[in-house]
Amino acid sequence: MAGSIYGKLFTISTWGESHGKALGVVVDGCPAGIPLCEEDIQIYLNRRKPGQNQYSTQRNESDTVEILSGVFEGKTTGTPISMLVRNQDQHSKDYGDIAVSYRPGHADYCFDEKFGFRDYRGGGRSSGRETIGRVAAGAIAAKVLKTMGIELTAYTSSIGEYSIDYKNFDKAEILENPLYMPDKACSQAAGKYLTEIIKDLDSIGSSVECIITGMPVGVGEPVFSKLDALLAQGIMSIGAVKAVEIGDGTLASKSKGSVNNDEFTVIDGLVTKTTNHAGGILGGMSDGTPIKVKASFKPTPSIYKEQHTINNQHKEITMSIKGRHDPIIGPRAVVVVEAMCAITILDLLMINATSKIDNLLKIYNK
Amino acid sequence: MAGSIYGKLFTISTWGESHGKALGVVVDGCPAGIPLCEEDIQIYLNRRKPGQNQYSTQRNESDTVEILSGVFEGKTTGTPISMLVRNQDQHSKDYGDIAVSYRPGHADYCFDEKFGFRDYRGGGRSSGRETIGRVAAGAIAAKVLKTMGIELTAYTSSIGEYSIDYKNFDKAEILENPLYMPDKACSQAAGKYLTEIIKDLDSIGSSVECIITGMPVGVGEPVFSKLDALLAQGIMSIGAVKAVEIGDGTLASKSKGSVNNDEFTVIDGLVTKTTNHAGGILGGMSDGTPIKVKASFKPTPSIYKEQHTINNQHKEITMSIKGRHDPIIGPRAVVVVEAMCAITILDLLMINATSKIDNLLKIYNK
Amino acid sequence: MAGSIYGKLFTISTWGESHGKALGVVVDGCPAGIPLCEEDIQIYLNRRKPGQNQYSTQRNESDTVEILSGVFEGKTTGTPISMLVRNQDQHSKDYGDIAVSYRPGHADYCFDEKFGFRDYRGGGRSSGRETIGRVAAGAIAAKVLKTMGIELTAYTSSIGEYSIDYKNFDKAEILENPLYMPDKACSQAAGKYLTEIIKDLDSIGSSVECIITGMPVGVGEPVFSKLDALLAQGIMSIGAVKAVEIGDGTLASKSKGSVNNDEFTVIDGLVTKTTNHAGGILGGMSDGTPIKVKASFKPTPSIYKEQHTINNQHKEITMSIKGRHDPIIGPRAVVVVEAMCAITILDLLMINATSKIDNLLKIYNK
Amino acid sequence: MAGSIYGKLFTISTWGESHGKALGVVVDGCPAGIPLCEEDIQIYLNRRKPGQNQYSTQRNESDTVEILSGVFEGKTTGTPISMLVRNQDQHSKDYGDIAVSYRPGHADYCFDEKFGFRDYRGGGRSSGRETIGRVAAGAIAAKVLKTMGIELTAYTSSIGEYSIDYKNFDKAEILENPLYMPDKACSQAAGKYLTEIIKDLDSIGSSVECIITGMPVGVGEPVFSKLDALLAQGIMSIGAVKAVEIGDGTLASKSKGSVNNDEFTVIDGLVTKTTNHAGGILGGMSDGTPIKVKASFKPTPSIYKEQHTINNQHKEITMSIKGRHDPIIGPRAVVVVEAMCAITILDLLMINATSKIDNLLKIYNK
Repeated sequence: MAGSIYGKLFTISTWGESHGKALGVVVDGCPAGIPLCEEDIQIYLNRRKPGQNQYSTQRNESDTVEILSGVFEGKTTGTPISMLVRNQDQHSKDYGDIAVSYRPGHADYCFDEKFGFRDYRGGGRSSGRETIGRVAAGAIAAKVLKTMGIELTAYTSSIGEYSIDYKNFDKAEILENPLYMPDKACSQAAGKYLTEIIKDLDSIGSSVECIITGMPVGVGEPVFSKLDALLAQGIMSIGAVKAVEIGDGTLASKSKGSVNNDEFTVIDGLVTKTTNHAGGILGGMSDGTPIKVKASFKPTPSIYKEQHTINNQHKEITMSIKGRHDPIIGPRAVVVVEAMCAITILDLLMINATSKIDNLLKIYNK
Repeated sequence: MAGSIYGKLFTISTWGESHGKALGVVVDGCPAGIPLCEEDIQIYLNRRKPGQNQYSTQRNESDTVEILSGVFEGKTTGTPISMLVRNQDQHSKDYGDIAVSYRPGHADYCFDEKFGFRDYRGGGRSSGRETIGRVAAGAIAAKVLKTMGIELTAYTSSIGEYSIDYKNFDKAEILENPLYMPDKACSQAAGKYLTEIIKDLDSIGSSVECIITGMPVGVGEPVFSKLDALLAQGIMSIGAVKAVEIGDGTLASKSKGSVNNDEFTVIDGLVTKTTNHAGGILGGMSDGTPIKVKASFKPTPSIYKEQHTINNQHKEITMSIKGRHDPIIGPRAVVVVEAMCAITILDLLMINATSKIDNLLKIYNK
Repeated sequence: MAGSIYGKLFTISTWGESHGKALGVVVDGCPAGIPLCEEDIQIYLNRRKPGQNQYSTQRNESDTVEILSGVFEGKTTGTPISMLVRNQDQHSKDYGDIAVSYRPGHADYCFDEKFGFRDYRGGGRSSGRETIGRVAAGAIAAKVLKTMGIELTAYTSSIGEYSIDYKNFDKAEILENPLYMPDKACSQAAGKYLTEIIKDLDSIGSSVECIITGMPVGVGEPVFSKLDALLAQGIMSIGAVKAVEIGDGTLASKSKGSVNNDEFTVIDGLVTKTTNHAGGILGGMSDGTPIKVKASFKPTPSIYKEQHTINNQHKEITMSIKGRHDPIIGPRAVVVVEAMCAITILDLLMINATSKIDNLLKIYNK
Repeated sequence: MAGSIYGKLFTISTWGESHGKALGVVVDGCPAGIPLCEEDIQIYLNRRKPGQNQYSTQRNESDTVEILSGVFEGKTTGTPISMLVRNQDQHSKDYGDIAVSYRPGHADYCFDEKFGFRDYRGGGRSSGRETIGRVAAGAIAAKVLKTMGIELTAYTSSIGEYSIDYKNFDKAEILENPLYMPDKACSQAAGKYLTEIIKDLDSIGSSVECIITGMPVGVGEPVFSKLDALLAQGIMSIGAVKAVEIGDGTLASKSKGSVNNDEFTVIDGLVTKTTNHAGGILGGMSDGTPIKVKASFKPTPSIYKEQHTINNQHKEITMSIKGRHDPIIGPRAVVVVEAMCAITILDLLMINATSKIDNLLKIYNK
């Protein structure tokens, strides 16, 4: 699993299993001089904490973070920042029969084939708890970006067939409802629907969007490290994501050039565009307008309903999955999407700082 | 632009501009012992060559590839394979006014802000010709994968509102029509529509799918280097892609767990699944069933129609883009999508070879 | 400090400061299926633990390691292995005046200029305690290598002018004397000399060698990732190392080809060489004979003797360094050199597993 | 050979074999806005060109470089710079018997074991001609560094037992004698000695030093990406190098702290040191004083003298190596050492630009 490291200059290395001792992350390459304390991180972790409402697993974890290195006298030193969250409420016994079964929609079978065996407790490394490290690192990235005027806003954009109405978009509402939707009416309707899904012992898909404002122009590298390409990697790497869209996304495939092209214009002396079908990215680089990215999440694969599958002896069985699990992934993943966007953008923003000799001379010539 | 390198073990480094002397790629890390000649590469390059039919730019390039290193006595040696294609039919004069204008939907403005100036001729590094290096490298990756029984099939799945009917799916048809669609009727209807688009001096969006069969189980690394995450990066890094979907893609966000979960079963002694909503990937690892990935392309931003925009003095102007350009991107990008999938999968397949000690002992113990 | 990550497939990410809460490492990419417990790590950490004899700092640390992830039912799972050592005996008060002074031979000034400020307590990230993460990761690498018959032996080869006599080389002696020398007589003479150095409030340089046996042929990649090049990086990255030599090292620059060339021969059906001036590496690849690498350590820069220097206001001062520090670096660094060799070799051995198609077919063809 | 790529932000990807069609390099990540033409590169390539005097192989190559991309209107654009040198004077017939023999001191045996076979013509990828790509890339790096006042001076410091006398050090002399020694008397004595070596059908070792002045403070990352660690990798990766030393190098292992420590002082308002045993690097970071690095080269392994060895059937044979080869490596490698230093330093200088938030704010805040 040489694949738990992400980023080139702002690099995160996450670790930990659902039912292991702890989970965490090491952030290497954070610029020195950023004020940072555990509360900065905790605010983000609390947004993904389980057991907060009726739509979330009842696992009870405080998810208290401890910063172990890289901060001195309240500021980042430029050295690796190690952060740790201890697991507290593992019920590993619930997962006994998973040890020998291949749950539909889960990676059990793949793990066994790839590594020869697996830590089956609570999904092991493929648990949603794996995202703790991402969110902790994302909290730092978001704080660094804020010093440069860049802000990220993520939210649930749809639950099943219930999509937010952009005419009712209310940013303040996002943290006010348990589904993190910026549209109160939609949130209430989706909540009712979700209650039915739970009664049916089923789960439902969802989507999450993230808007990033205040971007400088030119962040992202033109070929393989395009801003959209790395956002796609970062977001698709979140468990259960099946699609990533930038700007108009799939709709662009049905659009005409005369419609889809965003015209440049100048307002108040600043270059901008009259529309933003592109989602703020052209040729893999930020164009200065808001970035819009969207993730589609499949329904939680763990359902209480009985399903057919096979066991690790390749015998057909039926199973209904015990343990505690969410009926929907999107709302708790809102902060994870935000975190991955923050990490990706900061990394590319740091790389972009070296893109022209004039930038280097600003730093090195006195 | 420290971003023209892709892959960890099978690494490609592409270079070249639309109107420069040449374009090419260096492939580092190709396993030794693969039979390889220029014809293997040329077959792939010919699939993306311009000027082949009425739906493609009339730029006339033979796109003849030269292998400069890394092959000896007809086989790869394990050393870097350098490949070169000379540009022949540049009409740089056509692009004179682009030098000072910011075309809508193009990266001109971003390039100027990022690098201080740009090679404006024919889109420079952001031209579709940039994909020559990807396709040449992809041809090699596909050949290596074939030795292990892995095959890739890419095709145009939609043009504007014209989508293929999967009931009529005919793989043999793909190379028979100029739009690379596996559905003859759809191809013909889409072709007529495209002719109208051209008459309107406009362009249209499209989508491309790639199916990969013969995958071993376990390719892809569980967290950030998930197979789907790196496919997303690889495909989103192709110019004009605005969405990447795996399996059911965006539809998964509207599905229920009881429907979306693919049940495992055993047929003829082999583990497989009764459905494939997941598109062959679970937990970021291949599950042995066919991988399905889809890219949505925006319409070509270069259109002959008059558009409003600004110039590099930030003055409002109108322009209609001269030069030669395609009215649609998808069909010529089919082979590019296939190439990026091949490169990504081979790289992860090589990494996966080191995932367990048993694999290492197979190689090192005698 | 985007520079605390090392390795490509077997990747380590170390973190922690001398006087912070803890130090540790995340190992990403360890093959699954290796038996591993904390005792495996502790044995290595104990070899670098402070306070064990009169030649070492009297800081009192148990350096007890905790494995937090990546091991299940006593075996590595292929997921990241996070390891933690808590600091216990920090005497940060001793370092008060260091906060504003630039110690000769130390990185204080560089840290201030690079990052704007620094964690001055006990050397911060540049402390010898930084090597805890390296050694913990090296213990794992050495265990993996052992399954393939590869063994590492490191030892102190010289202290000041006292060099071991290879005619008296006794491997069993290494762990028997506090200086880790494989020559008892030399160890005793050097020990006496070291006592004088301590009385003089001074410090002394030293050298450490590592021999690696059981290497397969072909480990190391021919150009920039040569085995010797990456050993050089790994070892030179240990604090205080000023030279790295392979085989005959600097002496090769005075030798003739007819002498320095090692002739190939066959003994008992196995290819070997009649001499080993090359130190087991040709063209950057292992040749199957023992690898020999040597590190030269400068004397500990922290000395009790009074020295001239400047403070952070750039005023000239004199200072004698308080706090606890070793009079010599080599002996405690023996296990660090061994660790860096193990990590480097395992990483390249994993990469080499993908060097030819035959190896991949061994794994993927059934 | 996933090992022909070097550098993180300023990344070079070299390719080509001694007797293949061509050799070259792709430089990815060069900052935009640097004036660059082929002459800038040619000057460096000419310094390593064969056939220039009696101490060098008589292979006749013009080594004319062609820049194929990444430069527009005389300046770097920030896109990859591809450079090509065609081979002209291959005498592949000379190497017929090498195809089946394992030359002492060469990598033939390692190549065969690693890759299954090898391009035996003229050493293939392990030829000295492999350095063409390094030198071409190094010429660009040196030019970028020069804009920031950083200059590199490399020279031959010893040939066999003939070492330069630093009291006679004359920088202007370096390019005046065929051995690139900054001491005319030593150069003449060494030249005579070299003539004898050639008569004896033998070869001799040598050493090369590089001095870098004008360094800003803080370049290099404190743990694994230390400036000295990456210089060690870069230089040890040059064929035939057996030792890398920084500052006093191996002598530091015999020195006392009170002697080896360089005292800080302030001269003309600038921080400097009274001595420079450290070679300009402390804690892996540049300290602002001149960097000094030294490489020890083994004697050319190709000698005309008869040697014992084995063939690829593992039978004992004797051979005397035909073909054209240098009797000494150091002098022609002077420019290669300089190139690797330039590339390594520029890459770390670019990374360092992102080390503190103040630097980022200089670029992104308006």
